[in-house]
Amino acid sequence: MTTITEANTAKAQALLAQLTLDEKIDMIHAAGLFRTEGVPRLGIPPFRMDDGPMGPREELHNDSWVPLYHTRDQVTYLPSGSAVASTWNRELARTVGEVLGEEARGRGKDVILGPSLNVKRSPLCGRNFEYMSEDPLLAAEQGVAYIQGVQESDVAACAKHYVANSQETDRLEVDETISERALREIYLPAFEAAVRRGGALSLMGAYNLVNGEQCCESKRLLDDILRGEWGFKGFVVSDWSAVKRTLASAKVGLDVEMSVTPNFDEYYFANPLRRAVEAGEVSEDDIDAKVLRVLAVMDALNMLPDADGRKPARKAGRYATLDHAAKALDVARESVVLLKNKGGVLPLDESSMTRLLVIGANAERIHSNGGGSAVIKALHEVTPMLGINGQLGGNVEIEYLPGYAAKQVVQSDSWQEESLTNSAGEFADDAETAIRLREEAISAARRYAAAGDPVVFVGGLDHEHDLEGRDRETIALPYGQDELIAGLLDAAPDTVLVFVAGSPVAMPWADKAKAIVWNWYNGCESGTALAEVLLGRVNPSGHLPETFPIALEDCPAHSIGTFGPGLHVRYDEDIYVGYRHYETRRVPVRFCFGHGLSYTTFGYDGLQVERLDGVDRPNGCAVRVSFTVTNTGERAGKAVPQVYFGLDGTGEDRPVKELRGFDKIELEPGEPRRVELVLPVAQAMRYWSNELGEYAIAPAAKVYVGESVQDIRLAGAVVVRDADGKEAGDASVATGDAAEAGHAADAAGTANAVTITV
Amino acid sequence: MTTITEANTAKAQALLAQLTLDEKIDMIHAAGLFRTEGVPRLGIPPFRMDDGPMGPREELHNDSWVPLYHTRDQVTYLPSGSAVASTWNRELARTVGEVLGEEARGRGKDVILGPSLNVKRSPLCGRNFEYMSEDPLLAAEQGVAYIQGVQESDVAACAKHYVANSQETDRLEVDETISERALREIYLPAFEAAVRRGGALSLMGAYNLVNGEQCCESKRLLDDILRGEWGFKGFVVSDWSAVKRTLASAKVGLDVEMSVTPNFDEYYFANPLRRAVEAGEVSEDDIDAKVLRVLAVMDALNMLPDADGRKPARKAGRYATLDHAAKALDVARESVVLLKNKGGVLPLDESSMTRLLVIGANAERIHSNGGGSAVIKALHEVTPMLGINGQLGGNVEIEYLPGYAAKQVVQSDSWQEESLTNSAGEFADDAETAIRLREEAISAARRYAAAGDPVVFVGGLDHEHDLEGRDRETIALPYGQDELIAGLLDAAPDTVLVFVAGSPVAMPWADKAKAIVWNWYNGCESGTALAEVLLGRVNPSGHLPETFPIALEDCPAHSIGTFGPGLHVRYDEDIYVGYRHYETRRVPVRFCFGHGLSYTTFGYDGLQVERLDGVDRPNGCAVRVSFTVTNTGERAGKAVPQVYFGLDGTGEDRPVKELRGFDKIELEPGEPRRVELVLPVAQAMRYWSNELGEYAIAPAAKVYVGESVQDIRLAGAVVVRDADGKEAGDASVATGDAAEAGHAADAAGTANAVTITV
Repeated sequence: MTTITEANTAKAQALLAQLTLDEKIDMIHAAGLFRTEGVPRLGIPPFRMDDGPMGPREELHNDSWVPLYHTRDQVTYLPSGSAVASTWNRELARTVGEVLGEEARGRGKDVILGPSLNVKRSPLCGRNFEYMSEDPLLAAEQGVAYIQGVQESDVAACAKHYVANSQETDRLEVDETISERALREIYLPAFEAAVRRGGALSLMGAYNLVNGEQCCESKRLLDDILRGEWGFKGFVVSDWSAVKRTLASAKVGLDVEMSVTPNFDEYYFANPLRRAVEAGEVSEDDIDAKVLRVLAVMDALNMLPDADGRKPARKAGRYATLDHAAKALDVARESVVLLKNKGGVLPLDESSMTRLLVIGANAERIHSNGGGSAVIKALHEVTPMLGINGQLGGNVEIEYLPGYAAKQVVQSDSWQEESLTNSAGEFADDAETAIRLREEAISAARRYAAAGDPVVFVGGLDHEHDLEGRDRETIALPYGQDELIAGLLDAAPDTVLVFVAGSPVAMPWADKAKAIVWNWYNGCESGTALAEVLLGRVNPSGHLPETFPIALEDCPAHSIGTFGPGLHVRYDEDIYVGYRHYETRRVPVRFCFGHGLSYTTFGYDGLQVERLDGVDRPNGCAVRVSFTVTNTGERAGKAVPQVYFGLDGTGEDRPVKELRGFDKIELEPGEPRRVELVLPVAQAMRYWSNELGEYAIAPAAKVYVGESVQDIRLAGAVVVRDADGKEAGDASVATGDAAEAGHAADAAGTANAVTITV
Repeated sequence: MTTITEANTAKAQALLAQLTLDEKIDMIHAAGLFRTEGVPRLGIPPFRMDDGPMGPREELHNDSWVPLYHTRDQVTYLPSGSAVASTWNRELARTVGEVLGEEARGRGKDVILGPSLNVKRSPLCGRNFEYMSEDPLLAAEQGVAYIQGVQESDVAACAKHYVANSQETDRLEVDETISERALREIYLPAFEAAVRRGGALSLMGAYNLVNGEQCCESKRLLDDILRGEWGFKGFVVSDWSAVKRTLASAKVGLDVEMSVTPNFDEYYFANPLRRAVEAGEVSEDDIDAKVLRVLAVMDALNMLPDADGRKPARKAGRYATLDHAAKALDVARESVVLLKNKGGVLPLDESSMTRLLVIGANAERIHSNGGGSAVIKALHEVTPMLGINGQLGGNVEIEYLPGYAAKQVVQSDSWQEESLTNSAGEFADDAETAIRLREEAISAARRYAAAGDPVVFVGGLDHEHDLEGRDRETIALPYGQDELIAGLLDAAPDTVLVFVAGSPVAMPWADKAKAIVWNWYNGCESGTALAEVLLGRVNPSGHLPETFPIALEDCPAHSIGTFGPGLHVRYDEDIYVGYRHYETRRVPVRFCFGHGLSYTTFGYDGLQVERLDGVDRPNGCAVRVSFTVTNTGERAGKAVPQVYFGLDGTGEDRPVKELRGFDKIELEPGEPRRVELVLPVAQAMRYWSNELGEYAIAPAAKVYVGESVQDIRLAGAVVVRDADGKEAGDASVATGDAAEAGHAADAAGTANAVTITV
């Protein structure tokens, strides 16, 4: 883990002492759309930043959003944040970070503006494809590994957007009313982990307001929590144009102002800040604190010369390499989620296949070129059709029909002015065309089905819908896909439904479908990984990092809280985000959190819940949850065992289940593997007490082990003997049996829990 | 090696017997721009063919040259024929063939229209980039391996263009007067090897006439030589529109007519042929012979059902995979030729590099999208700038200046109607722009040189010049590059000159240059390989497969024979093509055939020339040439030892040196390796006797071993005891010493030859 050392701070101090006010001011605001100014006389370089979490963005002019149109800014297109989370594989999250860091450094960048760690509050949020999860632990775990990977290349990761940038609608002005408990338990933890465990060297202040305060003006968020409680030593950069006032941001720990216009000298942290200092409205100490943090990070990145003017060795980076593409493929292979596979429709049987019908515009569409600031100028992107054709080869006649017409986003010179054009003159707004395409596809599907030949539909969303700056209005599939799919399932019941998308969609036809595969915006080798899964060359092992609801009205942000326009939204659902809501209130969902099938099956037994001392910190105590997972099927596969706690005895309302740990393991057919998760009590039993107004330790918890939040296979319990709520040093652990552990364990129909008294 | 077996022929016979005349006719002319018609009632599929040697071309409409604009026809862009030859590595030629075969099969093709085996007669030929070499042995060796690789995937290679398609000017009508000796020794051998040793299942009849006969009407070429002498059992397809008359082509072994227009029923081999058969002008036996060959090839490719209608297993293929891209990179790494490296300017020292200036439009240009029928819809192509930036990473500031403006070819819907547009509005025809770009580059280079920072120029040609259907008019570099380079070498004498091109260019400034690197159209990873060579991560090992002359007037096709317009060209230079001319007549060249430097050096000693019996055929006899190559430098590298023979005692004029064998070996520093080449006398000593009008065996030969045709390190001799010129069964071999072996050995200044008496 990269950290800011005392030596870094000392060197920063020494340099700071030599800087003029003008030089300091130049270092804390943009001198280009993606850079600050350096101080050449002291060997201090500019700070070069770049979008974004899926790869370094193409080069733009310093002072305009017009690209340079080089060939040399083509990069490896990495799987999106949702895809990374969906692997439930920390090593792969680290791999993505490593590749991103190498690419960013290779492109000469110092800071890469990712990962995007906001918790998915509503499926409508336009940036959900960038975000990891609805669960703070999963977002934290994947985020930590990702950040550590990035920073191995002497590049700062930038955890964004701090905090609660959970909608795009009115994002520059929206004020979010969020309880302290929801902030502490849902919206802050991934950032806390990014700082404490990931060692993130920078954070990005969000556009929105929280509880009446601009994030980029909030002493509470930037000074008290981030630096005071978490000990953050890096710098905070504003989202691009998130600073709104000079004094309010200057007096708190917002360090660097970036924005979208080229009048850099008139930025709030430029001439206006200089005038404010000169007028005594802002203390130069406040400026110094910011510059010191910027310099300390620069030194941690080996950017600053030593006293003799010698530059230290710095990682060089590489980008657009075959090795990076191969790693992107590794990640994509584990992120594809098999949602449903009734009757073993999948994998498709290559040996008997002579014809294949592929339907759906997303089969022929690339996605790297859209999405807003996450846009990628990909050196290559394998579409589903290219992947299926390229992998299946020449002995299968593969017919393609669009089925529906989709809007194409054409990225204009400014990401803020995307223009929309129709694809090949055929767009579903034209009802006649829509009907013709649909009927053509359905009738072909019927012919294929009658002949016993497989049909694959590839639909979903695109960056016309998963898009920065705009939320969806509905979770319904666009372009008339629902009618098409319903027709396909009538005509060809075994039709395999594949969705390329960054956010859940309603699936009114889901009960009729036999096979549903979820493919995120999955990087440059997306189509290859998808084909490998469909053909059974890769056994799917992705699990949902968010709940797929049946209807938007079921979502807590919409049924309890408010979302969207109005400049004020209320997070009244509190901590009941995602599965915390659905599970606790027993709201049926389409596919639950953590769900993901495999071409093999896994058995669970031998649960042990034990006390373990001396973990995490001196006198700290942990719960060791161990159990055996066995591959009970006939092919190798990867399981994602998940451990949920249901905190008890707090005297406050609590979700029935909260993710506390997970692992990803590969098992050969018949192979058993003992899985052991060591969960520090101080974290696993921690909650924010509304009553106390601070963190507390729950006196007891139910323990659930399963393959998703609903598919619980084992259950036990923990009791903390000394339940003072603050110190877990003297906790003890016990398990009850499955029946005691609540409805989930009942549902699992198991009694594998073991009672242990410590 | 794939061959047509008796079983294939028997099945073809059985099917033939069931065909109507109409069905037969349908099988021997186009029913689409790239396919024939099948016979569904018998399970005979269409024959699907596709351009070309660097990867399967994008999908077009069946009856127009307009592409389908899919994403699923993107492929791996493979190094061009010249690049493949330049590796002097048969294994890599085989790799290229394997990848091409898998890609073609993956794309559902039966025949891939390559390799292009024409001997490079003039540097002006527009298709030289597709062709292998000016030397028939090198073209044959690489062609054989390539064909064998392709055909491993149940795809037929198509050796083209048979024969002597050595110019594009008036290619549809030009009549070439070529001596029998030149045909036999220069223009036919690569095709002979393709058939006899490569097992090529198809050949393409060329557009041009040879000695007054259309290639596609020539009994001599198609029946007597190809089938009679070489035993070819595959089929001959016409180049697209190379059939000009029904009867003349129908009565010889031209099997399938393809063309460029969509009026398929009116092709010479369609309705007109049917009418000719009905009128008794063409015998149905002639038709049957063609169909039989088509069917036999189909069966060899596992395309035909058995008697029960079951299809045999056929390779499936794959395309656009990372594995294929990695193999393209392997090839590119060995094809780059280090032409000059005075003072060890290369490799560039990464450890001390902080800035790098790259100049030249070819650094930022892709080439896969041009060239005519060899055009590729590449899934990706790494330009030199992307490769250099991507490999060097973020610690070196890399500045780019175009230096000159280049025309851009925009591929229109028809490859026959390419339109030319200017790049970004700046084209060197605008003298003011040209001067501005040049001066800007030269003055920047001067600044870099003054600071000790490296300068790399990347220029050369493009598919505006290396282009099917048009020859160059000059070997001078276009776009004012010579003036620019001269200026750069004045301003920055260490400037590294890189050329991306498919044909030699004049280098009037060559004596002043210190470092010259030749990079062909080198496939999807071209820029990566180039960067690795420049940075010394890969030790260059490419050697020129053709002579780089000083001036066009030095070239035999221009100084002795005729070339270009006029509808009649005379190959009066006879067999003195390429180095055979320059060496024999002692014409100075810029860089000789076989030349290629390394970052290490190789020593040669211990030559043994011995007789070896029982090789090649019963009673056959071979010359074993063995010697030791030692890596005398300080890094691992690959040597290309070359063996030339100078035939003596024939009583006829002969070239002083002709390539008879080569190897490619990798050696660690200090490592010696014994190299042994076994050369059958029947081939190594064979020549076409003008006097006898047939092949003869030379009674003696000088033997040269070296690193190029001029850098001879060892010399010996062979004497054939029984010099009846026809039977080498009783040959004996002896070596003289180096001094006796002629001027080349003298030049080498060595006396390493060993005398052996058998």
